[in-house]
Amino acid sequence: MKRTLYNADHEAYRETVREFLRREVEPFKDQWDADRWIDPTVFARAAKAGIYALQIPEQYGGAEESDYRYRMIVCEECARINALSFNTTVSLQDDLVLHYLLDLTNDEQRSRWLPGFATGDLIGALAMTEPGAGSDLRGIRTTAELSGDHWILNGQKTFISSGIMADLVVVAAQTDPAAGSRGFSLFVVERDTPGFERGRKLDKIGLPAQDTAELFFDDARVPAANLLGEAGKGLHYLMSHLPRERLGVTAKAFAVTRAIHQKTVRYCRDRKAFGGSLTDLQHVRFELAEMKTEIDIAEAYVDKSVHAYNAGELTPVDAAEGKWYVSELQKRVIDRCLQLHGGYGYMAEYDVGRAYVDTRVQTIYGGTTEIMKEIIGRDLVAE
Amino acid sequence: MKRTLYNADHEAYRETVREFLRREVEPFKDQWDADRWIDPTVFARAAKAGIYALQIPEQYGGAEESDYRYRMIVCEECARINALSFNTTVSLQDDLVLHYLLDLTNDEQRSRWLPGFATGDLIGALAMTEPGAGSDLRGIRTTAELSGDHWILNGQKTFISSGIMADLVVVAAQTDPAAGSRGFSLFVVERDTPGFERGRKLDKIGLPAQDTAELFFDDARVPAANLLGEAGKGLHYLMSHLPRERLGVTAKAFAVTRAIHQKTVRYCRDRKAFGGSLTDLQHVRFELAEMKTEIDIAEAYVDKSVHAYNAGELTPVDAAEGKWYVSELQKRVIDRCLQLHGGYGYMAEYDVGRAYVDTRVQTIYGGTTEIMKEIIGRDLVAE
Amino acid sequence: MKRTLYNADHEAYRETVREFLRREVEPFKDQWDADRWIDPTVFARAAKAGIYALQIPEQYGGAEESDYRYRMIVCEECARINALSFNTTVSLQDDLVLHYLLDLTNDEQRSRWLPGFATGDLIGALAMTEPGAGSDLRGIRTTAELSGDHWILNGQKTFISSGIMADLVVVAAQTDPAAGSRGFSLFVVERDTPGFERGRKLDKIGLPAQDTAELFFDDARVPAANLLGEAGKGLHYLMSHLPRERLGVTAKAFAVTRAIHQKTVRYCRDRKAFGGSLTDLQHVRFELAEMKTEIDIAEAYVDKSVHAYNAGELTPVDAAEGKWYVSELQKRVIDRCLQLHGGYGYMAEYDVGRAYVDTRVQTIYGGTTEIMKEIIGRDLVAE
Amino acid sequence: MKRTLYNADHEAYRETVREFLRREVEPFKDQWDADRWIDPTVFARAAKAGIYALQIPEQYGGAEESDYRYRMIVCEECARINALSFNTTVSLQDDLVLHYLLDLTNDEQRSRWLPGFATGDLIGALAMTEPGAGSDLRGIRTTAELSGDHWILNGQKTFISSGIMADLVVVAAQTDPAAGSRGFSLFVVERDTPGFERGRKLDKIGLPAQDTAELFFDDARVPAANLLGEAGKGLHYLMSHLPRERLGVTAKAFAVTRAIHQKTVRYCRDRKAFGGSLTDLQHVRFELAEMKTEIDIAEAYVDKSVHAYNAGELTPVDAAEGKWYVSELQKRVIDRCLQLHGGYGYMAEYDVGRAYVDTRVQTIYGGTTEIMKEIIGRDLVAE
Repeated sequence: MKRTLYNADHEAYRETVREFLRREVEPFKDQWDADRWIDPTVFARAAKAGIYALQIPEQYGGAEESDYRYRMIVCEECARINALSFNTTVSLQDDLVLHYLLDLTNDEQRSRWLPGFATGDLIGALAMTEPGAGSDLRGIRTTAELSGDHWILNGQKTFISSGIMADLVVVAAQTDPAAGSRGFSLFVVERDTPGFERGRKLDKIGLPAQDTAELFFDDARVPAANLLGEAGKGLHYLMSHLPRERLGVTAKAFAVTRAIHQKTVRYCRDRKAFGGSLTDLQHVRFELAEMKTEIDIAEAYVDKSVHAYNAGELTPVDAAEGKWYVSELQKRVIDRCLQLHGGYGYMAEYDVGRAYVDTRVQTIYGGTTEIMKEIIGRDLVAE
Repeated sequence: MKRTLYNADHEAYRETVREFLRREVEPFKDQWDADRWIDPTVFARAAKAGIYALQIPEQYGGAEESDYRYRMIVCEECARINALSFNTTVSLQDDLVLHYLLDLTNDEQRSRWLPGFATGDLIGALAMTEPGAGSDLRGIRTTAELSGDHWILNGQKTFISSGIMADLVVVAAQTDPAAGSRGFSLFVVERDTPGFERGRKLDKIGLPAQDTAELFFDDARVPAANLLGEAGKGLHYLMSHLPRERLGVTAKAFAVTRAIHQKTVRYCRDRKAFGGSLTDLQHVRFELAEMKTEIDIAEAYVDKSVHAYNAGELTPVDAAEGKWYVSELQKRVIDRCLQLHGGYGYMAEYDVGRAYVDTRVQTIYGGTTEIMKEIIGRDLVAE
Repeated sequence: MKRTLYNADHEAYRETVREFLRREVEPFKDQWDADRWIDPTVFARAAKAGIYALQIPEQYGGAEESDYRYRMIVCEECARINALSFNTTVSLQDDLVLHYLLDLTNDEQRSRWLPGFATGDLIGALAMTEPGAGSDLRGIRTTAELSGDHWILNGQKTFISSGIMADLVVVAAQTDPAAGSRGFSLFVVERDTPGFERGRKLDKIGLPAQDTAELFFDDARVPAANLLGEAGKGLHYLMSHLPRERLGVTAKAFAVTRAIHQKTVRYCRDRKAFGGSLTDLQHVRFELAEMKTEIDIAEAYVDKSVHAYNAGELTPVDAAEGKWYVSELQKRVIDRCLQLHGGYGYMAEYDVGRAYVDTRVQTIYGGTTEIMKEIIGRDLVAE
Repeated sequence: MKRTLYNADHEAYRETVREFLRREVEPFKDQWDADRWIDPTVFARAAKAGIYALQIPEQYGGAEESDYRYRMIVCEECARINALSFNTTVSLQDDLVLHYLLDLTNDEQRSRWLPGFATGDLIGALAMTEPGAGSDLRGIRTTAELSGDHWILNGQKTFISSGIMADLVVVAAQTDPAAGSRGFSLFVVERDTPGFERGRKLDKIGLPAQDTAELFFDDARVPAANLLGEAGKGLHYLMSHLPRERLGVTAKAFAVTRAIHQKTVRYCRDRKAFGGSLTDLQHVRFELAEMKTEIDIAEAYVDKSVHAYNAGELTPVDAAEGKWYVSELQKRVIDRCLQLHGGYGYMAEYDVGRAYVDTRVQTIYGGTTEIMKEIIGRDLVAE
């Protein structure tokens, strides 16, 4: 069925994105992978070109455009050129950090941070996860104590995307151990805060260029003015931003899945073996057909989710369903596409091989598949 | 996400259907299963109540309503009461036979057959499949030879739904062996045609009340006026009606899947074991959550397919994707739901047990899953 | 790889079994299915022919042969002729009831019951499950109170195999509510015991000829001499007999799986479609090859289990692994084999269709797949 | 069930292997991964320690020990320390190259090559695959023409394991284009052969330290004395050595699967989340239990295969079944184990993450899963 998600404005934007990627990302991405590091200045160029941060109000230098379809297009175009470390970094800014800065800030904070974010000169991160605590937010043990006009932070975070390059880190900490789930708060920790140290850049099996790090807070002094929203509401804030984060994972997952499948169809058509094309084999046609069907079916849900998100109606359960299902689909499809490539699929120079390792974290971050099923299951049996 | 498929007219119709089923189907369906036969007079009552044949033009006694959402509602309401043999029989009339009579008939034929079809007094069947030929339409060996103003039919058909009760049978036969795929034609064979015999009612593992039969043609004399459309175009006519038939299987599949899942959620909530409710077990919650996700995702595609069909835009590939995917989902979900019922799931008195055996044919008739994958795969690699 | 499970004695026994089935089962089994009842006199003929109850000591009329390979051969030969209701009934005697009568009886009881069991004149049943309690043995609410030289039983059992035809029913009841898991005991309730009533024969979706029933105990008076073993050890006795019961399910599962696969290979070789044999299609060959591999791999484990059982070394975890894995394999293989048969697979006259419905209970009775995984999982994490 | 594969001699050997790996491999393997290169001198130490090449006759410096269980133990011990690049390289020597040198050589060749192989001073490779030809051996286009007392080789090979470090390369080339499948021959091309060039070391997504390369032959002059066996029998020789190669993949697959599962059980027992251990969660126990069952079942087949191989009875079909099934199991199990590790699973420092990327080639090399299914399927339908 014809896809009806986009209109002409979106397609015009696609051209902009494609041109930006052609000029600023495609020629460099292999080097970034080899360096295990993306040159951070590309994000300033990206923000200025409108690749992300569109949603920032005009008074702070943004386009005030909240239509999620623009974000979807960035995902699709990054997937087309297999720039997954780049897109994951952009997703962190656009699907995650930005919303804390837009939704929980006061005017003073907005004036301080949004203009830099809009130009891509300030890179953000979100520091939620701690060693050994995983998806269990109530297990956060980093503490923040108010001392005069500063909060003193102590603790450790891990798996922090853009942790090394971030100028601003939204940090979740326990501010009142006696208050249970109401005892957590969020702070913006800025670069060069005394007592804030970056640990090593973590060595992952995929997304090599993407920056993931440990962070340490050792009596880190954070100005009281950097508290986000109200003290004690930290867990609530985290929970309320999860649907957008999860839609972000879904969007990336869907775009990569479709792109790799299309490349694999072309590969199988072009590849000769046993005296014909690979697609002369019934098994190959069945594999491609099964995957196409699953992708088309997921597309209907993804597009419906985008519309629902734009309308403010995407529930946490809706987002959880899309997140686990489409990221698992991505894993399944890319694994099968790799197999169809034979030995070439195992080579890092082929998109499918690179996508295979980059994909594996999708069912884990943003809430594992298992956490998603708990959310859906509990809601279902409580009805 | 909120389902937006239906408007108030559809919901009003749902009440009509529900009332009809409550009165005319629910009290009798277990007896029909025991008898392995549905009292055929119920179809006349159903047609008059508007349960099917809505699409017939007003001049022939119909409502001239082609919106597929009304058919979808019948599927959902039949699924709610687990009347699957009844709904399969209705589907045959409404998704299959009716369209041959609407699309391929001349005025004279319409006048002869549509009024009876509109009142449910004429039941139709479609005789395509032959012993040993399965999905291979080119393997049809029933012949029709023109002799004066009659066609003389010889051959045998099998797996013919409503074959015993049908008043009109649309029969595919070879009319020109030399013409390859252009050598087949369609005929309406009426009850009491000399040389037309019904074989035994076939004993299936499910859908017990649903009528499936063998048919025999031994110099059967069919008036020339009963040729449908043009001679030689039979295969083309069959192919062009497959998308509607397949959408019909998809609609049934989706409705049953959702209904059994909902019943299973309730069962697991109510069922006590090991000192609590079944839903206290994480495995049970995960099972229910996985199935709900898969059903919600399929729903987006099914609803999009219904809109596309209404708009005349559902392609053979779209229909094939929905047909195999949703019928396989149905099989998978009902199997898992049965397992969650433990020993009760194996009892014929539980909806899930009955649905399990009724479901098994869904991935076979209307074109097997494998045929669907061939259709999709060939289209994909030919692009 | 060549199978090395059997020696010449076993193969000679296979001939005996095959001859018995050819004469006494094959001509009648369709009628038994239609009647939903097996003529019980066949079991007396079977026992006398050595088809089951071989393990009974010679002094009571048995062959004192405990090699499980003889039982395995009966499973294979019954599977060959698709006599699954018959074999399930034999399995109940040989894998289940007999062991309670051999292991827990005193000399007086053995003299009373074993001779009749050895000749097949006494049919046994085991009444463990209660409505709503499923696999949760601690949920047994049938009570037995000692009153003089009788135990007075009150309660209800369900899903009792051979419940209608049984002459002896081993019944689990609570004898001391205060004693927790040590408060259950086993009794042999004999035909015509006052207060013991059979309920209706349950209507299942498969195994139609196999007798499954509800039983009621309303102040049923059971002689004190019919207590099995010691009072209070009932749960322990049940648990200790589960590995044999589960091996019995595994044996049936494996035999049916292999037999249906072999029949399907032959079907696909013989069946013509699209101008060739079904096995000309790569998908069909892949399906058959995948299943063959999975069956061969399971065979290695099954045969190893038989040797371990014979040596007294099959642990509850070993039996649980075989039970769930091979019964799930059976379900998966038979479903795929049915699909390869197309429309014929849905017909009750084809072995594969009949086996499909008969198979569905295998992952449920004898402990569901989920219970097996709990047993294995708890053992694993406790190591 | 207790594993009975090994006796005391094997367990003594295990200690030797373990000690060797502790001293010579474990301290260096991370550096090898970082270097994407294994220091080749370790293989000389390994051969001298009896880690491989045991099968070489005593007169050439070997132990003349062909029991495959010794190889199996090396696989298990390498898996224990997750030294997969090392073990893959050893497998190439022991499961592949050595057998060409043992089976197809004349005395003169044996004297030239086996002593060096026995001491690990000569490393071998097998050059079969060509760009674009994959598993299709008949697609080999490298040619060898006899010119005087040399064969002149021209062509290109790819995906050649140990291609950079090899001293001896067994090369398959076409020697008689008119002879069809009888037109291929095997040659040993030695280091420093004029016209023989190594291409680049290929960049794979896993097995980083393992050497995989392209090789080029540009009028390469190979002495006539380096022809292996008879000219024209090359394809036959390749085919006849595939079962051993495939058993080698199966052995590696099984060992890694068991090892990672055991590590994951320990991880889940030790890891705290949501106020308890991960193994307090039913889903985690079920995952671990399902995997343990599948591994135990595969073990029975693997051990049976080892015995059959030792007895000279492992058929190509047996080997193909084990190869695809166990390597797919490995992929499935390691993927699930990674998921149970959450974010830690994606880190290269965890064994499971590293094993995940190393594993992906197992279903591809040595004949893809699809090729295995063709072999099994064709054999099955031809019976």
